[in-house]
Amino acid sequence: MEYPLIFQNLIDSLKKLPGVGSKSAERMAYDILNMDEDTIKKFADSILSINNISRCPICGNLSENNEPCEICKSEERIKNVICVVHGPKDVFAFEKMKEFHGVYHVLYGYISPSKGKGFVDINLASLISRIENETIEEVILATDLTMEGEITAMYISKLLSKFENLTVTRLAHGLPMGAQLDYADEMTLFKAFSNRKIL
Amino acid sequence: MEYPLIFQNLIDSLKKLPGVGSKSAERMAYDILNMDEDTIKKFADSILSINNISRCPICGNLSENNEPCEICKSEERIKNVICVVHGPKDVFAFEKMKEFHGVYHVLYGYISPSKGKGFVDINLASLISRIENETIEEVILATDLTMEGEITAMYISKLLSKFENLTVTRLAHGLPMGAQLDYADEMTLFKAFSNRKIL
Repeated sequence: MEYPLIFQNLIDSLKKLPGVGSKSAERMAYDILNMDEDTIKKFADSILSINNISRCPICGNLSENNEPCEICKSEERIKNVICVVHGPKDVFAFEKMKEFHGVYHVLYGYISPSKGKGFVDINLASLISRIENETIEEVILATDLTMEGEITAMYISKLLSKFENLTVTRLAHGLPMGAQLDYADEMTLFKAFSNRKIL
Repeated sequence: MEYPLIFQNLIDSLKKLPGVGSKSAERMAYDILNMDEDTIKKFADSILSINNISRCPICGNLSENNEPCEICKSEERIKNVICVVHGPKDVFAFEKMKEFHGVYHVLYGYISPSKGKGFVDINLASLISRIENETIEEVILATDLTMEGEITAMYISKLLSKFENLTVTRLAHGLPMGAQLDYADEMTLFKAFSNRKIL
């Protein structure tokens, strides 16, 4: 025999979530089954209303109902420093650090010649127009330290070299906090070595 | 800054699922964000319709809209053998084995003197009335091999001793398939030893 159809549908839905296999989906479905009606309704509503999440028309970060995001709207942020990141997740990672007071630009992708993804496939044109139309002093390239992240950073940095009064920076490379030398990969160690500082 | 409220609500809902912490909930929420509108609707619907899942009025297993479950309704099942289990999950575990052709009775709990849970707190009265009103030949006690599962099995077995023509059985104890002796716990080894068979 099979699970009742309603129950199987829920399992199938849950299995679409990242890292959720058949066993976990089953366990989650049983848990939802034991929730009270109100909690179940709230849960379903919270999923449905995700349709109202949009991208900030200025930086591309998550926002609601097509309005500018909280960061772009805030008067406390320094608007002439833009931190360029891959996705909205990176924005929130940066915000947790609480040390950056500028604004962001979210690319939603990387330039990847091997995957045939170029300039037009990521949210880059709007970055250029921001720099052209506002007085931007610094662009921090905070893309990942992966092959694609590096290529994209290099590409953007070349693209921005025509703006004379603009400083383009890149996050520092090196050993992470608490790192043990013998566990570090060669690339990291090389970056840490070549960027070494005089004490 | 914080996540948009809609997004945070979704994360909070997902965090209520078993084994889902802040990080996983965030990752799931981003995944749901990338689903198309139709999938999102189906997901929410599958959660909402779980309210229509009910307990089978005969055995307590999962069913829809207060009807008897598929197993109790089926004419191919042997109705005079009842397998007593803790929860609906155990029913489906048994069904996967494909070797049991009788029917079930789901307790939804165990008798536990230390937690003050007794006879009335589990779905036991209806088992007695099934035995009184139908011609049941065998009751298989398939409760877990935990302290509470054992206590409950012993309690039920005493309770059923008054029915003269009824055979009450318990699942065999012993080493699981593929077990290595030196990894087995003492209780399992003792059970395997004392239930040893003549070859």
